[in-house]
Amino acid sequence: MAKLELTGVYPPITTPFTENGDVDFNAFDKNMAKWNETGLAGFVVFGSNGEYVYLTEQEKLALVKACVGACAQGKKVIVGSGCESTRATIELTNKCAQLGADAALIITPHYYKGKMDRAALREHFFTVANNSEIPILVYNVPKFTGINLDPDFVAELATHPNIVGIKDSSGNVTQLAQLISMTPDDFNVLVGTANVFFPGLMLGVRGGIQALATCCPNECVEIYQLYKEGKYEEAKELQLRMIPVNNAITATFGIAGLKAAMDMLGYIGGFPRRPLLPLKEEDKTKLRGILEKAKLL
Amino acid sequence: MAKLELTGVYPPITTPFTENGDVDFNAFDKNMAKWNETGLAGFVVFGSNGEYVYLTEQEKLALVKACVGACAQGKKVIVGSGCESTRATIELTNKCAQLGADAALIITPHYYKGKMDRAALREHFFTVANNSEIPILVYNVPKFTGINLDPDFVAELATHPNIVGIKDSSGNVTQLAQLISMTPDDFNVLVGTANVFFPGLMLGVRGGIQALATCCPNECVEIYQLYKEGKYEEAKELQLRMIPVNNAITATFGIAGLKAAMDMLGYIGGFPRRPLLPLKEEDKTKLRGILEKAKLL
Amino acid sequence: MAKLELTGVYPPITTPFTENGDVDFNAFDKNMAKWNETGLAGFVVFGSNGEYVYLTEQEKLALVKACVGACAQGKKVIVGSGCESTRATIELTNKCAQLGADAALIITPHYYKGKMDRAALREHFFTVANNSEIPILVYNVPKFTGINLDPDFVAELATHPNIVGIKDSSGNVTQLAQLISMTPDDFNVLVGTANVFFPGLMLGVRGGIQALATCCPNECVEIYQLYKEGKYEEAKELQLRMIPVNNAITATFGIAGLKAAMDMLGYIGGFPRRPLLPLKEEDKTKLRGILEKAKLL
Amino acid sequence: MAKLELTGVYPPITTPFTENGDVDFNAFDKNMAKWNETGLAGFVVFGSNGEYVYLTEQEKLALVKACVGACAQGKKVIVGSGCESTRATIELTNKCAQLGADAALIITPHYYKGKMDRAALREHFFTVANNSEIPILVYNVPKFTGINLDPDFVAELATHPNIVGIKDSSGNVTQLAQLISMTPDDFNVLVGTANVFFPGLMLGVRGGIQALATCCPNECVEIYQLYKEGKYEEAKELQLRMIPVNNAITATFGIAGLKAAMDMLGYIGGFPRRPLLPLKEEDKTKLRGILEKAKLL
Repeated sequence: MAKLELTGVYPPITTPFTENGDVDFNAFDKNMAKWNETGLAGFVVFGSNGEYVYLTEQEKLALVKACVGACAQGKKVIVGSGCESTRATIELTNKCAQLGADAALIITPHYYKGKMDRAALREHFFTVANNSEIPILVYNVPKFTGINLDPDFVAELATHPNIVGIKDSSGNVTQLAQLISMTPDDFNVLVGTANVFFPGLMLGVRGGIQALATCCPNECVEIYQLYKEGKYEEAKELQLRMIPVNNAITATFGIAGLKAAMDMLGYIGGFPRRPLLPLKEEDKTKLRGILEKAKLL
Repeated sequence: MAKLELTGVYPPITTPFTENGDVDFNAFDKNMAKWNETGLAGFVVFGSNGEYVYLTEQEKLALVKACVGACAQGKKVIVGSGCESTRATIELTNKCAQLGADAALIITPHYYKGKMDRAALREHFFTVANNSEIPILVYNVPKFTGINLDPDFVAELATHPNIVGIKDSSGNVTQLAQLISMTPDDFNVLVGTANVFFPGLMLGVRGGIQALATCCPNECVEIYQLYKEGKYEEAKELQLRMIPVNNAITATFGIAGLKAAMDMLGYIGGFPRRPLLPLKEEDKTKLRGILEKAKLL
Repeated sequence: MAKLELTGVYPPITTPFTENGDVDFNAFDKNMAKWNETGLAGFVVFGSNGEYVYLTEQEKLALVKACVGACAQGKKVIVGSGCESTRATIELTNKCAQLGADAALIITPHYYKGKMDRAALREHFFTVANNSEIPILVYNVPKFTGINLDPDFVAELATHPNIVGIKDSSGNVTQLAQLISMTPDDFNVLVGTANVFFPGLMLGVRGGIQALATCCPNECVEIYQLYKEGKYEEAKELQLRMIPVNNAITATFGIAGLKAAMDMLGYIGGFPRRPLLPLKEEDKTKLRGILEKAKLL
Repeated sequence: MAKLELTGVYPPITTPFTENGDVDFNAFDKNMAKWNETGLAGFVVFGSNGEYVYLTEQEKLALVKACVGACAQGKKVIVGSGCESTRATIELTNKCAQLGADAALIITPHYYKGKMDRAALREHFFTVANNSEIPILVYNVPKFTGINLDPDFVAELATHPNIVGIKDSSGNVTQLAQLISMTPDDFNVLVGTANVFFPGLMLGVRGGIQALATCCPNECVEIYQLYKEGKYEEAKELQLRMIPVNNAITATFGIAGLKAAMDMLGYIGGFPRRPLLPLKEEDKTKLRGILEKAKLL
């Protein structure tokens, strides 16, 4: 049986908070309405950009419900339901499945880095896959976890019928190429950073889950379309133009920067939750300059 | 008003699990009874060695209750109630306080490492300290968090009346020396690794929170006593003898190794929770050899 | 005045040693004769793959002389004349220039990493550029130096008329994209690792200096030609096929592996110089398997 | 036969340069005359603090000659004659031996980090030891080399009769303790950083090779004497007082800072060689403040 197919662009959407730190569901719905009008292929709810580590289980479930409820026909809902423990991951994933999620993005458990060897991770991912009611994607994000999943290990995980793809946020294009070479054709290799979307597509990735798509969905979708149409020179130019923006909303200014960019670009970013601090005024000015230079404002 | 004084040796106690992954409260109580007969100064419940990242809130609260209930007169109970978000940390800390905990060990939030700068961490620790009903200790454990708290920043935190000390698990003796030089006399600098307990004491630390004290409480307490009595040569010899044991139950074999050592030394280690795997038989043999060489078996 | 233009593929050629550790000039000449028959654009003599850190100045100069003497018409000779000190770099570079070298590849000085800030490196590269009789290329190789040159700093270096390009061996494709965006059109951005040659070309790099070109010059040149002809699918396939080979002769087996591959593919690899050890027999078997799988044997 | 015994304090002396970058032998002699009047046990000439990576072979030999010639009776001269290649290391070491050096400090070759495994390093150190006319000390300095020599590997090296000790600059006190436990009594374990001299002595190290001893020889010697006399409280106080000074002349301001401190404390620091830059005026002011706070000015 073929695996669930995931192509195109998915934003790992942010969770808007009010100034006092509560989830702002009203803002969430407004953002969903706008994203629904774009060419996005779906949504990742409470991934890293969704500040999932700051959310209670109740909040996570309320967000899935809201996302599934608001999601336009044909778009998919993926949940970031990975937890540190295997049992908690399974439990949360299945609660999300019951609420209508299409797939789950499962992060590498990482607190005890030194002991998360292949034996431990293999058992974790396979046990989750065996017990999850929805297909799972492996989430490789070394900058947050301190662990990289090697392509040959991912190839082993890809043999499981319920493990349908990977979001690779390493930024390492050689690794993307190896993932493509070493996994079956129906395994969804998705780029986890907008900076290498175009080169990744040229090597065979199917799509991307990218913070940039949260504030600039149209540009991300356009890179994908240009690639599909063989307009490589234009795709390259757009890719090069977007890199400074993506760096600003990820490495440089982080989630607070992404939320500020959303505010500037017609979405509702809102506040990050503490200990994350909102963007300082001087950094907002810098960010605005970067958006202007990229012709987004 | 002087700060709560913490001297001597505290084990960051393990959480015993049954083979199917449930908390084994019966085993927990038996361990407490044995530890109560030693010279330990108290307990840290659900710290890193307690697999706190794998516990639900209900389990954490049940463990505090069990620990407070079983704890011998005069020994203190410290809880590892730090969470990634500031609000969750305050909430959990105060629930533990209500159950009778004496102090809280607050880990550095670390998932969004790149954004956990001084401004963010200062606000986090000060907000927690302002709102916590019990004194807090800062927990610096770079090997798990990927963040080190510099001594001059800790000195700033030490100005808060409700921040009473630090557990420094960096293993960096220069940093311990700086912490002692740069913080007031009533700020409790505690060594977080048994490997440098004796050198730390020679430089002025007050005590230690050490995984080794979970399986070898008497030896850890003896290093402390020998130091107090000025028997430095004997303290040194015991320190050197314990290093291979400590390396085995931390860096080499991790929590599974610590639990296996407990099983060998008269305590109930039990199973770690998945994805942590129990120690392999061949590693148990190696561990037994190390305990024998250190004359513990 | 336009800068020297460097396009196409350059191998950073190895230095063959006899078993007792002497430079084998006879083998060197034989390799040159074979490389001359390929579509390579030139040679880098005593770069990292040339074991330059193990060569005396006399040996380096003899190798330039041999390379310049043997080099086919139209191919360029680039020398790896960077040293730790500024004065030694200038002196060696100009001795090489006198012997006919076309350009010099200047590595980031790195022993005192902590002090190699922009001020120090700016003065180093500008002083070398001011005093060098031949154009220089900046050599960014973080895996050996522990230092990465950020694109905006390289953009600053690119303003110097005698700094004509960069070999970027970071493997970081985002960084390649930024280098292309941030430097003038006549600044030669060259990829330093064969693994990302095709994606680099799609983003606008001019060519590559690649260990793989030492043992597989035809395949590297073919990727370049296919790209030039717009045969992207074929270029991609060849790129994917070459990655395992390139990993074997760089990260996995190092220079000893590259030399062994040369021996298997019709060149003379010879021995590495101590402390580098020759490839073990079991690793030669693995390497042969990798070459066979890539249809090179 | 017992190994050469090395106890007490050795400064890794700086190489003074004139503003135009030439070695200032006159200044070198003046410094030697002053150091000769202290309780220092000897000198390390052209170690890391001697900017050995910037010196030509001729300069190195001239410096050994000058050091041996000026050295007071009973003090030992150790040379930093390690090179990247095994053959160059042997050659330089024996030239230094001919000039009267007592021992050689051999750094871990490190450019090809990934290939400097135990097999390669074992052969390197044993071959050098077999062929050196003087005893050798292993030099472990991970911050410059990116490689750490594990204690069990050093224990293996210690079995060679001509490998007489180690300078461990890791700053890792656990590792010092392990080196003491795992090597024979006649193997000289020397601390390579002044920050952990006193704790190192309490654990059994014999002495230290410390940048701080270059500008503050009396204080370093005093820590050693206080330890010898059992005045541990005073030794601790002096150790704590010296840490900020040592941090300033190493991690914070580097060799330029050490040279500036020498200038302030009655020695001739002189200029560092390019690409190292001299200390900025504002940093000189900070440094002076640190020396004043430590009661050195």
